[in-house]
Amino acid sequence: MENNIFELQYAMDTFYFLVCGALVMWMAAGFAMLEAGLVRSKNTTEILLKNVALFAVASTMYLICGYHFMYDGGMFLSGVTTVAQMDDAAVAAVLEASKESGFGDMGEYAGASDFFFQVVFVATAMSIVSGAVAERMKLWAFLAFAVVMTGFIYPIEGGWTWGGKAVPFIGELSYSDYAGSGIVHMAGAAAALAGVLLLGARKGKYGPEGQVNAIPGANLPLATLGTFILWMGWFGFNGGSTLKLGGIGVANEVANVFLNTNAAAAGGLIAALVVARIMFGKADLTMALNGALAGLVAITAEPADPSPLLATIIGAIGGIIVVFSIVTLDKLKLDDPVGAISVHGVVGLWGIFAVLLSDADATFMGQLVGTLVIFVWVFGASFITWFVLKMIMGIRVGEEEEYEGVDISECGMEAYPEFTNS
Amino acid sequence: MENNIFELQYAMDTFYFLVCGALVMWMAAGFAMLEAGLVRSKNTTEILLKNVALFAVASTMYLICGYHFMYDGGMFLSGVTTVAQMDDAAVAAVLEASKESGFGDMGEYAGASDFFFQVVFVATAMSIVSGAVAERMKLWAFLAFAVVMTGFIYPIEGGWTWGGKAVPFIGELSYSDYAGSGIVHMAGAAAALAGVLLLGARKGKYGPEGQVNAIPGANLPLATLGTFILWMGWFGFNGGSTLKLGGIGVANEVANVFLNTNAAAAGGLIAALVVARIMFGKADLTMALNGALAGLVAITAEPADPSPLLATIIGAIGGIIVVFSIVTLDKLKLDDPVGAISVHGVVGLWGIFAVLLSDADATFMGQLVGTLVIFVWVFGASFITWFVLKMIMGIRVGEEEEYEGVDISECGMEAYPEFTNS
Amino acid sequence: MENNIFELQYAMDTFYFLVCGALVMWMAAGFAMLEAGLVRSKNTTEILLKNVALFAVASTMYLICGYHFMYDGGMFLSGVTTVAQMDDAAVAAVLEASKESGFGDMGEYAGASDFFFQVVFVATAMSIVSGAVAERMKLWAFLAFAVVMTGFIYPIEGGWTWGGKAVPFIGELSYSDYAGSGIVHMAGAAAALAGVLLLGARKGKYGPEGQVNAIPGANLPLATLGTFILWMGWFGFNGGSTLKLGGIGVANEVANVFLNTNAAAAGGLIAALVVARIMFGKADLTMALNGALAGLVAITAEPADPSPLLATIIGAIGGIIVVFSIVTLDKLKLDDPVGAISVHGVVGLWGIFAVLLSDADATFMGQLVGTLVIFVWVFGASFITWFVLKMIMGIRVGEEEEYEGVDISECGMEAYPEFTNS
Repeated sequence: MENNIFELQYAMDTFYFLVCGALVMWMAAGFAMLEAGLVRSKNTTEILLKNVALFAVASTMYLICGYHFMYDGGMFLSGVTTVAQMDDAAVAAVLEASKESGFGDMGEYAGASDFFFQVVFVATAMSIVSGAVAERMKLWAFLAFAVVMTGFIYPIEGGWTWGGKAVPFIGELSYSDYAGSGIVHMAGAAAALAGVLLLGARKGKYGPEGQVNAIPGANLPLATLGTFILWMGWFGFNGGSTLKLGGIGVANEVANVFLNTNAAAAGGLIAALVVARIMFGKADLTMALNGALAGLVAITAEPADPSPLLATIIGAIGGIIVVFSIVTLDKLKLDDPVGAISVHGVVGLWGIFAVLLSDADATFMGQLVGTLVIFVWVFGASFITWFVLKMIMGIRVGEEEEYEGVDISECGMEAYPEFTNS
Repeated sequence: MENNIFELQYAMDTFYFLVCGALVMWMAAGFAMLEAGLVRSKNTTEILLKNVALFAVASTMYLICGYHFMYDGGMFLSGVTTVAQMDDAAVAAVLEASKESGFGDMGEYAGASDFFFQVVFVATAMSIVSGAVAERMKLWAFLAFAVVMTGFIYPIEGGWTWGGKAVPFIGELSYSDYAGSGIVHMAGAAAALAGVLLLGARKGKYGPEGQVNAIPGANLPLATLGTFILWMGWFGFNGGSTLKLGGIGVANEVANVFLNTNAAAAGGLIAALVVARIMFGKADLTMALNGALAGLVAITAEPADPSPLLATIIGAIGGIIVVFSIVTLDKLKLDDPVGAISVHGVVGLWGIFAVLLSDADATFMGQLVGTLVIFVWVFGASFITWFVLKMIMGIRVGEEEEYEGVDISECGMEAYPEFTNS
Repeated sequence: MENNIFELQYAMDTFYFLVCGALVMWMAAGFAMLEAGLVRSKNTTEILLKNVALFAVASTMYLICGYHFMYDGGMFLSGVTTVAQMDDAAVAAVLEASKESGFGDMGEYAGASDFFFQVVFVATAMSIVSGAVAERMKLWAFLAFAVVMTGFIYPIEGGWTWGGKAVPFIGELSYSDYAGSGIVHMAGAAAALAGVLLLGARKGKYGPEGQVNAIPGANLPLATLGTFILWMGWFGFNGGSTLKLGGIGVANEVANVFLNTNAAAAGGLIAALVVARIMFGKADLTMALNGALAGLVAITAEPADPSPLLATIIGAIGGIIVVFSIVTLDKLKLDDPVGAISVHGVVGLWGIFAVLLSDADATFMGQLVGTLVIFVWVFGASFITWFVLKMIMGIRVGEEEEYEGVDISECGMEAYPEFTNS
């Protein structure tokens, strides 16, 4: 009968992991809709293709080598099958090991469910990049970068943090980041920043006398849908990061994570809406959406410990930061069509240090060193990769292609052939 | 080992609650897409903003005070964290209490998961309002109403029904409403009706000689997507209302709820499609969508007890009612751009009394008194709130703003800047 | 205490089934968005209506008779309620039966959850048809076919395969098809093919001198969203086909299914993208989307046994096949606006035989005979049904209606009244 209990536990934890993984996979659709809504119609087919293709590339590269670099899961390709076909003796051994530990920390689960959950995280990091470089980057250069990012750059950094591997010259990090404000979001933004620096701004975004020209997105319902999808998927992103469910303590923690994730998004949205109203005189939908996402990023590094009220406040501060960050980046002529660097990078930074507000074990130095390691590695490796791609194949489309839209030149088809006169 | 079983039960029930809550949260996206698809393009940005912002307002207000008014969860803000950090002694106490009850009614779960599930219900009630007052109400007046509705009006009514509190002058209600045909849907419609009465119809909707002018929605794929999202989310809305999962009896009940919810939506859609075909001579997509939603509302007050065939019929009657109701409201010059008052209010009423068809414990008088209490309170309190807002800040945009569309005047941005010539 | 364990198991397996069913229901939204994105704007309202209405028809017909033909669940309509209201004696009997089996194969679940999971499969098969006959078939003829397909044709075929019933003249099949590459997908495509043959191509698709004219879809973000929805829903489609979750072995299997399903979609997308780039010189978004769907169809007949790398390859071959198939069908003047026959039929065929790569128990002859039985029955019965409908009511809209778009003539409303000048 002990075996029965353990089997149930095992099945439930696996189920929980898979549900959370499916929700995170769904975030890929969220990024696709958000970005497709915020670019101009002439660049929409291409951003859609980038988003679906990066998810496929991430899934494949993480399988081939990324998971290995992150968790030493080298035998993974064959290993999963072996586990599934585990004979009775093997099952008995697992049960025995579990019983010896007194069931105290139940929570074994299928290895394949762990891979599934991790692989959708990789895609999230890469999705952040596509928005920032939208409307001017060559499609195939982007996909080549995706291969390097999802197969190497992110997994190596993930190995130093969640994988518990030693960082060269530094050793093990004392860095606390529950679901990845830094490890996933700031990392994605760092890769995006490197790309934006080498790529330059879209034609017409910044005028000769320093003026910033608004380039409105073509389809705001899509952008709103994308935000709702991300909001929903984030429950899996943060919730699944307990890595198991079983037991009263963990179940309580998971419930807190869901509640706090929602509270932070709400706080971020309201704060960004109000701040933008004060600054611009209008109720700015895109700022409100970015505020919600900022709240989600801000709570990601520690969604379990804060009280719901503190979570709301952490999210609200994220929402305020994102408005000022978007304005500031434009002043610096760093052209990020969807605000990804602000949402995931600048607010990710805030999230990392907001851990100190509720987690007594986290230290300022630990967070700082971790942040620096992640940023220096991801930004540096990405910069080199983008630079090499720029030398080999070029990363920016031609001026005429940019003017006409990349949909025709890259994809040969318009996203809305009947709706626009251009 | 008993403890292990209890811990598993606790974790599974919490997990179930959180999954259902995430599905209900997803309904917010459904309302946003439905309403954005059914308004004109010039009012789309604003309806999107109303929908995301009301969800954030609901999340925050219910946390600050709404949950307290509904369930006496006053210590909630700090309480959740305490539960999560429950020490071994506290866990032991919970286990002991559970054992004494003989495991007979297992089904404890994390308090935070209950809050999470309840908070997304509040947002649903408020989402109903936004559609009915679309295309002419001021954004900030709407959000001010959302503060009152989600922080006070709905929670107080919810306390009288699901919260089991005494109603002033009446005492406890004998009113049966499983997942809220009345408590959520008719309540939302009552608040919407009060707003519509004070707001008046859109310019051009009703001609001087009594003619009713159709104002077609700008984006029917969005409206269809919204309906599918609501249909899916409703499984969580009705399914989660068992409040627990564990045990054979409850699991059977939950499975019936899923099946009946789907059957009622199907019945509602088919009935509305056929009735509209007979009445208007065409296969009317928006009527079919409203028929599906009507089926869902109709079954919400008792989704567990009916046979699937009865559920189909209850839904189908809802689908018939909604067509006639929409036509009738237009005759009364009650302008409801998305049909929310018909779908959630009139059909909600039908749902409340349809309980009598399958639940032997429910009584006509109990349902009637409950309905009156909910309607009188929500309509009355909402009417006063709208009226005060009208006095203080005005609730209707200026005539020119309405003509040009509220997107420009309220939000400063168009939803589809490249698609329309207006 | 044994009872408690069994109750937990029962509840968890029911919960698992319901979550998977909800994901498959969500696929109906995916098909709707995919097809709405790939047709022209003038035919969009009608394809949306077909998609929501077929789901309602499938839900109702399968309840009335389909489930009975497939699984002898004749008493179903009343039966579900009975199970839910199962008294203590009945519960005790179930427990007793379970104990006698030594808990070895735990995995009882609520009957209603089984129905819910099966009914959404029926809708999937029917959804495949709507895309292939889009832009020219009469709405009510289509719905009449849906009645026959979901109430009779599919359930009878499903009874021969998953239902384990004897096939006339043949007896029991030795045919292995885990989640339905053949039983669901190829079957849907066979019904579609019969319709397309009787219906003919859209006006203007094929020129007099054999040229093939591209008819671009009106809204590619919708098509992309639809693909993401299908990708997500497929986790439920394949994952739920274990029919239970409990136990280490099954949990491992389910986790493999999730992982392999994702891997195959990724492989299919990448392969189709690269092949289309080589053949057409452009990065073709619609081919990439069809590649992802082809990967999903290909792995559906055996998603549990292959290693993840093999799953990627099976998906990739599906992705290659789909590109060539779409080109070939156009050469044969078989006009399939969304590529459904290629994705679900031709690649479904590949999926059926790909089972032989990893499942030692499957035989070539078994797969071949099963395929022939399914195809001959579904194609034949569908052809007769379409033919009878053609005689009775006609299946194709008039030439002028086709030219003006079926939205106006069939539904009386445009999908995007403000976006198009036509």
